[in-house]
Amino acid sequence: VKLVADLDLDVIAGVTTGFTGADIANLVNEAAIIATRRNGVAVSLDDFTAAIERIVAGLEKKSRVLNPEERRRVAYHEMGHALVASSLPGVDPILKVSIIPRGVGALGYTIQRPTEDRFLLAESDLKNRIAVLMGGRAAENLIFAGNVSTGAADDLQRATEIAFEMVTRHGMDEKVGQRAYAPAQRPFLPGIQADGVQAAETTAREIDVAVRDIITEAFHRATGTLQTRRDDLEKGVELLLTRETLTAEDFPAIRSNVARADERVTLVRPRPTVTVAPAE
Amino acid sequence: VKLVADLDLDVIAGVTTGFTGADIANLVNEAAIIATRRNGVAVSLDDFTAAIERIVAGLEKKSRVLNPEERRRVAYHEMGHALVASSLPGVDPILKVSIIPRGVGALGYTIQRPTEDRFLLAESDLKNRIAVLMGGRAAENLIFAGNVSTGAADDLQRATEIAFEMVTRHGMDEKVGQRAYAPAQRPFLPGIQADGVQAAETTAREIDVAVRDIITEAFHRATGTLQTRRDDLEKGVELLLTRETLTAEDFPAIRSNVARADERVTLVRPRPTVTVAPAE
Amino acid sequence: VKLVADLDLDVIAGVTTGFTGADIANLVNEAAIIATRRNGVAVSLDDFTAAIERIVAGLEKKSRVLNPEERRRVAYHEMGHALVASSLPGVDPILKVSIIPRGVGALGYTIQRPTEDRFLLAESDLKNRIAVLMGGRAAENLIFAGNVSTGAADDLQRATEIAFEMVTRHGMDEKVGQRAYAPAQRPFLPGIQADGVQAAETTAREIDVAVRDIITEAFHRATGTLQTRRDDLEKGVELLLTRETLTAEDFPAIRSNVARADERVTLVRPRPTVTVAPAE
Amino acid sequence: VKLVADLDLDVIAGVTTGFTGADIANLVNEAAIIATRRNGVAVSLDDFTAAIERIVAGLEKKSRVLNPEERRRVAYHEMGHALVASSLPGVDPILKVSIIPRGVGALGYTIQRPTEDRFLLAESDLKNRIAVLMGGRAAENLIFAGNVSTGAADDLQRATEIAFEMVTRHGMDEKVGQRAYAPAQRPFLPGIQADGVQAAETTAREIDVAVRDIITEAFHRATGTLQTRRDDLEKGVELLLTRETLTAEDFPAIRSNVARADERVTLVRPRPTVTVAPAE
Amino acid sequence: VKLVADLDLDVIAGVTTGFTGADIANLVNEAAIIATRRNGVAVSLDDFTAAIERIVAGLEKKSRVLNPEERRRVAYHEMGHALVASSLPGVDPILKVSIIPRGVGALGYTIQRPTEDRFLLAESDLKNRIAVLMGGRAAENLIFAGNVSTGAADDLQRATEIAFEMVTRHGMDEKVGQRAYAPAQRPFLPGIQADGVQAAETTAREIDVAVRDIITEAFHRATGTLQTRRDDLEKGVELLLTRETLTAEDFPAIRSNVARADERVTLVRPRPTVTVAPAE
Amino acid sequence: VKLVADLDLDVIAGVTTGFTGADIANLVNEAAIIATRRNGVAVSLDDFTAAIERIVAGLEKKSRVLNPEERRRVAYHEMGHALVASSLPGVDPILKVSIIPRGVGALGYTIQRPTEDRFLLAESDLKNRIAVLMGGRAAENLIFAGNVSTGAADDLQRATEIAFEMVTRHGMDEKVGQRAYAPAQRPFLPGIQADGVQAAETTAREIDVAVRDIITEAFHRATGTLQTRRDDLEKGVELLLTRETLTAEDFPAIRSNVARADERVTLVRPRPTVTVAPAE
Repeated sequence: VKLVADLDLDVIAGVTTGFTGADIANLVNEAAIIATRRNGVAVSLDDFTAAIERIVAGLEKKSRVLNPEERRRVAYHEMGHALVASSLPGVDPILKVSIIPRGVGALGYTIQRPTEDRFLLAESDLKNRIAVLMGGRAAENLIFAGNVSTGAADDLQRATEIAFEMVTRHGMDEKVGQRAYAPAQRPFLPGIQADGVQAAETTAREIDVAVRDIITEAFHRATGTLQTRRDDLEKGVELLLTRETLTAEDFPAIRSNVARADERVTLVRPRPTVTVAPAE
Repeated sequence: VKLVADLDLDVIAGVTTGFTGADIANLVNEAAIIATRRNGVAVSLDDFTAAIERIVAGLEKKSRVLNPEERRRVAYHEMGHALVASSLPGVDPILKVSIIPRGVGALGYTIQRPTEDRFLLAESDLKNRIAVLMGGRAAENLIFAGNVSTGAADDLQRATEIAFEMVTRHGMDEKVGQRAYAPAQRPFLPGIQADGVQAAETTAREIDVAVRDIITEAFHRATGTLQTRRDDLEKGVELLLTRETLTAEDFPAIRSNVARADERVTLVRPRPTVTVAPAE
Repeated sequence: VKLVADLDLDVIAGVTTGFTGADIANLVNEAAIIATRRNGVAVSLDDFTAAIERIVAGLEKKSRVLNPEERRRVAYHEMGHALVASSLPGVDPILKVSIIPRGVGALGYTIQRPTEDRFLLAESDLKNRIAVLMGGRAAENLIFAGNVSTGAADDLQRATEIAFEMVTRHGMDEKVGQRAYAPAQRPFLPGIQADGVQAAETTAREIDVAVRDIITEAFHRATGTLQTRRDDLEKGVELLLTRETLTAEDFPAIRSNVARADERVTLVRPRPTVTVAPAE
Repeated sequence: VKLVADLDLDVIAGVTTGFTGADIANLVNEAAIIATRRNGVAVSLDDFTAAIERIVAGLEKKSRVLNPEERRRVAYHEMGHALVASSLPGVDPILKVSIIPRGVGALGYTIQRPTEDRFLLAESDLKNRIAVLMGGRAAENLIFAGNVSTGAADDLQRATEIAFEMVTRHGMDEKVGQRAYAPAQRPFLPGIQADGVQAAETTAREIDVAVRDIITEAFHRATGTLQTRRDDLEKGVELLLTRETLTAEDFPAIRSNVARADERVTLVRPRPTVTVAPAE
Repeated sequence: VKLVADLDLDVIAGVTTGFTGADIANLVNEAAIIATRRNGVAVSLDDFTAAIERIVAGLEKKSRVLNPEERRRVAYHEMGHALVASSLPGVDPILKVSIIPRGVGALGYTIQRPTEDRFLLAESDLKNRIAVLMGGRAAENLIFAGNVSTGAADDLQRATEIAFEMVTRHGMDEKVGQRAYAPAQRPFLPGIQADGVQAAETTAREIDVAVRDIITEAFHRATGTLQTRRDDLEKGVELLLTRETLTAEDFPAIRSNVARADERVTLVRPRPTVTVAPAE
Repeated sequence: VKLVADLDLDVIAGVTTGFTGADIANLVNEAAIIATRRNGVAVSLDDFTAAIERIVAGLEKKSRVLNPEERRRVAYHEMGHALVASSLPGVDPILKVSIIPRGVGALGYTIQRPTEDRFLLAESDLKNRIAVLMGGRAAENLIFAGNVSTGAADDLQRATEIAFEMVTRHGMDEKVGQRAYAPAQRPFLPGIQADGVQAAETTAREIDVAVRDIITEAFHRATGTLQTRRDDLEKGVELLLTRETLTAEDFPAIRSNVARADERVTLVRPRPTVTVAPAE
C-alpha cells in the first residue's frame, strides 16, 4: 500500500481513536481498494476518509431516494448536530457532514474527529455531548415550527443512555444524590426499575425526572445556539443540499471552537421500515 | 403474462410499495389467474386490483352473511375511514372501499394507495394516520349516537401502537419529554410497564395519558371532519350498500386532497367468534 | 334416524348455532338414543331438547338433593336470568328454565336460543348480556333482602370477562379511553396488571373501576326490571318449584320481547365442594 | 362387626358427611378395634366417636404435657368456639369439645356435626362460620385482657380464606363490587396481588380492607356472644378442665340453637416448635 | 460414663429441652471427653455445661483477639441481654454469660435455661423475647451514647422474625388486623412483599410499620430496664471483663425473677469479615 | 528469599491483614522478583510495597497517558481521599498515594495500612469510612467548582454498599428502625426492592432516603475537612504531580491522626471505555 506524499497521519489517527489493530488493517485495506477503483497511484486522505465512512456508517445507498422535503429535513438535522458541536468547548471537531443515505437506516450523518484518548469526563463534557446529540432535533423543531420527525430516535436513545449514567452511576443529580444504583445484574430479579436500577418507586421517579431534565436543558442550549447562528444554519443547509457532503474546509462555520472530545459519528437512523411504516 | 394496452403501471407500483420481489411475482400470478377465470385475453388493472385485495385482505367470504343492521354499520365504518383519509394532507389516496367480508375476520375494508417510499415521518403525519384509523369508530359514534361496536378493535390496536411509539421513542409528548424508553428487550426482567417500557410508575402513567390524549385528539378531528361532511357520509354509505365496493371514480368524494402516504389497508376485523360470542 | 313429521328445524338450528359438524352428529345421536329409551317411533323436538341439555349442561344429577331453602333460592336465581333476558332488546329468547341439577356443579340452568350468527356487537348488546348474567344475583338480592349466595360465582366471572374486553379492547369507557391494552402474550413479562393488560398502576385502577361500574350499572338495571315484574318473578318461581322445568309455552312471561342474541346457557355453578365447604 | 342395639345411625351419618366409601370403611374398622380393646361385645356410638376423633384429629398425644396456664387457655379457646357455634343460626351442632392434645399440633379441638349436604351458602352462613372460627381468639381476648396467644393461627388462616373468597369470588363486598378477580392460574405472571388475584394496587388494597373488616365484624360478634354468655363460658371451662372432654349431654349450654351447617372440626394448632421456638 | 454424685440432672434437662436423642448422646460424649481432658474421675455439671457451649456456640476461638474497646463493648452487649432477661416475667433464667469468642462469628454469648416445653406463647411472652434480644443493642446505645455497633445484626434479624410472625400469622397488631397473610409458598409468584407475604402495597406498609413499632417498643423497655439497673450493668461488665464467663452464682443480679421460657442462646455474631470489611 | 536487615515486619503485617496464606506466599514471591529485577541483594520494604501495589491495584499501565487536566484532577481526587483519611479518628493510616495508572481501570490510588483485625465496627467507624470514600469527589467538587467527573463511580458504589448495610442490616437509621430487612436470597421472588431487600414501597423509599442522607452527610464532612486543609490539598497535589507517588514520609500532612481501621485501597476506577465513550 503506497500513501500519497502529503498524507496527514494525525487526522487519520484522530478518527481511528478506539480502533483495534484489526479495525485499522481493515481500514487500510478498504482505502487501498477505493484508491484502486479511482485508478489512483497512491492512497490519499480522501481514500481513507471514504473508507472510514464506509466502515462506520455503511455503504452508500443510492437506491434510498428521499423526497425533497425529507432531504431538506435531513440537511437541517445534520447541520444542527454540526453547528452545536462547533459551538461547545470540549467537543470533537467536525470531520464531515453528509446527507448521502448509508448503511441499514442512515439518511445522513455527521462525523466528528476525536483528538486524543479520554479517561475522565467532567459533568460539563457529558452535558455537551448530549447537547450535540440534541442538535438535530433542535434544528428540526426550529425550522419546522415544532413539527419534528422520526429522524431523532437514535439521538434520543443515546442522549438517554448518557443522562441515565450521569444520574445513577456518577451521582451528578443533586436530588437523586451521590450514590450508585445497582444495575440489573441478576437477570431474574424484580424490583428493578427505570432503565434497570433497583430503587423504590419514588426514587425511580426522581431518576426519570433527572434524566428528562438533563436532556431538556441540553435541548434548550442546542436551540439557543442554533437561534443565534440561524444564518450559518441556513447557509450550511443550502450548501449541503447542493454538494451533499461538507467538510470544515467547504464550510468554515462548522469548524470546532475547541479541540478535544471523542464522540465519533452521529447518524440519523430513522429505520423507517420498522418505525413509520408498520406492515399490516 | 400479457397486459392490456392502457394498464397504468404507476397505480400498481403505488399499491405494491413495500412488496418484495416474491410478493410481486405472486401478485402477477394471481392477476393472471383472475384474468383467465374471466376469460380475459390480457391482464387488466381490475385483475391486478382483485389480486391485490385477495392477497392483502384474504379471500371473499360469501358465507359470512351479516344482518342488515350490521352491514349498515360496516358501511358507515368504512366510509368513515375513507372520508377522513380524503380530508387530511399527507395521507395516501383511497383505492377502494368495500363491505364484502374477506379473510379471517374482515367484515369490510378500505385500501389506500401509497404514492412513494417514505423514510421520515413528521409528527403531523403520524397524527393524521391515527385520525384515519379512528375514522371508522368516529362514524359509528356519530351515526349510532354513541352506541359504538366491537368493529374497531384492530383500529384501536394500531392507533395505540403508533401513539406509543410517538411518545416513548420519538419524544413527541412534551410532558414525557424527549427521551427514549428502553423496550423490553430482555425477556425475563420486571419493572417493565406501559406496553413494555422501563419507567417509574408515575412516568408510566404520564406515558399512558399521553397515548390516550393523542388518540382522543385524533378521534375528535375525525369526528369534526365527518360532521362537516355528513352529506358525503350518507351518500357514500347509500352507494356502498348498493354496490358493495366503491372507487374514487364511483364516488369522487373519497378522492384524496393530498397525494402522499404509505398506509395501505384498514380492515375491520372484529373477530366475532372470539370477542363477541365467547363460547360457554 | 327418523324425525317426527312436525319437527321445527328452525328451533334446532337456532340452538345449535356455533355447533360444529361433529357437535351436530353427536346431538342427533343423543336425540335418537333418548327417543329409543322412551320407545318413540321417531325423534321429536323434545328428544332434541333433552339431548341438547345433556350435552350443554351435563347429565341430570338426581343424587344432588338440595334442601327446600336452597331449591327455592335456585328457582329465584334462574327466573331472574329469564325475566331480565325477556325484558331487554337484542337478547336471545328463552328456550327453557330448569332447577334440575346437572353436570359437574350446576344446580339449575336457563337455556337461551340464538336466532342468527352475530359478527358485530354494539356497546348496548354487551351491556344487556351483562344485565342478563346479573339477573340471577339481582333476584336473590331482592328476595333475600341482600343476603346473597355463592350461586352467582360463574355469572360474576363471565360478566367480568365481557366488561373487561369492553374497557381494554373496545375502548368503551370514556375515562380509560379509546385505546387497546396489550394482553399478556409474553408469558414471563411483568408489569402486567388488571386481568393481564400492561398499564401503569393508575391506569390499571381506572380499568378496574370501569369494569366494576359497568357491572354495577347492569346489576341495577336487572334489579329494576325484576322490581317492576315482581309478580312475574313470584309466579314463575312458584311454577318452577312445582314443575322443575319451564318453557315460554308453560310460562309466557319469559317470552322474549326481542328476537336476536347468541348467548346460550346460563348455568348456576356454585361448585359447592370447592367454594363453600373447604375440607379441613 | 356387630353394632349395639340402640346405635343412632343418624348421628354417625351426620358426622361422616363428605366421607368417601373408603373413609367410612376405615371408620368402621377403627371403631371395631376400639370396641375390641375395651372388650366390648358390640361397637357402640362411643366407639364410633372415638374412631372419628382419631381419624379427624389424629392420635391422642399423652406425652404433650401442657402447663396449667396453657391448659386453661386452651379450655377457654375451645369453649369459645363451642359457645359461639351454639349461638348462631345455620351452624352445625357441637358433637364434642376436648382439651386432649392430638395429632401433629392440636392442643384441643371442637367437633361439629354437619346435618346435611350443602350446595349453596348465603353471605350470612359464611359470616357465621367466620364468627365460629374467631370464637377461640375472642374467648382468649376476653379472659386474658387482650393478651392473646399463638393458638389461633389456624383459625385466622381459615377465616381469611373464607373472607377472601367472599370478596373476590362471590362479590359480597359492596366497595370491591360484584365482579370476579382472576386467581393466579398462570404460574409466572406478575401483577398478582392480595392472596393471588390480579388487580390494580388500589383495588388490591380495597380487597385487603374488605377481608379485614369481615373478620373484625365476626370477631366482635363472637366477643359479644361470649360477653353475654360469660357464665356459660366459665362453667364450661371449669367442667372441661375437670373432664377434658364434653358433649352437649355433659354441658347443655353448647347445644346448638339451629340445626344445619357442615363445618366439622375446629382444631387449635399452634405448631409451637415452628412458630414460637425458632431454633438458633 | 460415670457421673459425679451431686449432678443436678434437672439443670441439664432444662438446657437440653428440644434436643433429640442423638443430640443428647452427642452431649454426653462431649462431656465425657472434656472430663477426661481435665483428668476428672467423673463427669461433672461443669463438664456438661462446657459440652453444651461447645455444641451450641461452637469451639472457643482463642485466635480471635479483640481489642480492649471491642471487648468492653461485647461485655456490655452480653450483660444487656442478661439483665433484661432477668427482669422480665416468663423468660428463661440465665445459665451463663461469656465474652469468650466461639464458633464461626460469635464474639460473646449468653445462655438461657428453658425450664419446660412450651406449646402456646402469649403476646406478652413474644414481646418479652424481643426485649431480651434488644437488650444487647440497648446496652451499647446507653453506654456509647448512641454510637451502636455491627454486633447486633443477628439480634435484629431474630427480633424481626418474631415480630413479623406476630403481625402476619397471629393477628397481634390491631391495624393490620386478625387475619393471616399467605407466605410465599409458590416460588415464582410476584406480588409478594414485606418478608414474603402477599398483600397490597398499603397493607405491606402497615405490616412494616407494625413490625418496626413492636421492636421499637421492646427496645425502649430494654433501655428502661438497663437505665434502672445501671449499677448492675456496670458491676456485671467489670466482673465479666475480669472473669470472661459468669453464672448466676458468680453474679446474682442476673438471676431470673421468673422461671419459665425456652429461649436458649443469644449470640453476638457480627461476622465482621463480611459486614464491615468488604474486600475490594 | 533473603530480607534486608532493618525490614519493619509490622508494616507488612498491617498491610496484609486479611491475606490468606496463599496471598502472602504470592506476595513474598512477587517481592523477590522485584528485588531481583533491581539487582538487590535482599528483599527490602520497598520491594514488598511494590509487590503489594502490583497485587492489589494491578500492573502499572504506562500506555495509559492522561492529558494534563485529567492528571491534575486525579491528583486532587487521590489527595482528597488521603487528607480526609488523615483527619478522622479510627481510620487506617495512609501508606501511599499515587497517580500512576494501574490495572484494568485505575487512574490513581491511595493505599491505607490496617493496623489490626477488627471484629466490631461502630456507627461512627462506618460513617468515617464513607467520608474517606467521598474525599475524592469532595476534592473535585471543591476545586472544579462543582464540575465533578466520572472518576468517583467506584467510590460511590462502595459508599452505597456500606450505607445500605448500615440501614437494612444494622438498624442504624432511626426512621427505618432497628429491624433487619431480608436480602434477596431466593433468586426468583419479586417484591424485592432497594438493592435487594423485601419491603413495602414506602419503606423501600425510606431506605433509599436514609442511604442518601448518610452519604450526603459524609460528603459534607469530607468537604469541610478539605476546605479547612485547603493549603495541604494544594501542596499535596503539587508534590504528587511532580513525584507521582507520595508516602507520609514525603508529605507528613497525610500522616494519620488516629491509628486503627482496616480499609485498604481506594482506587479511582472510571473505566472510561465503558462509561464515558460508549462505542457507536
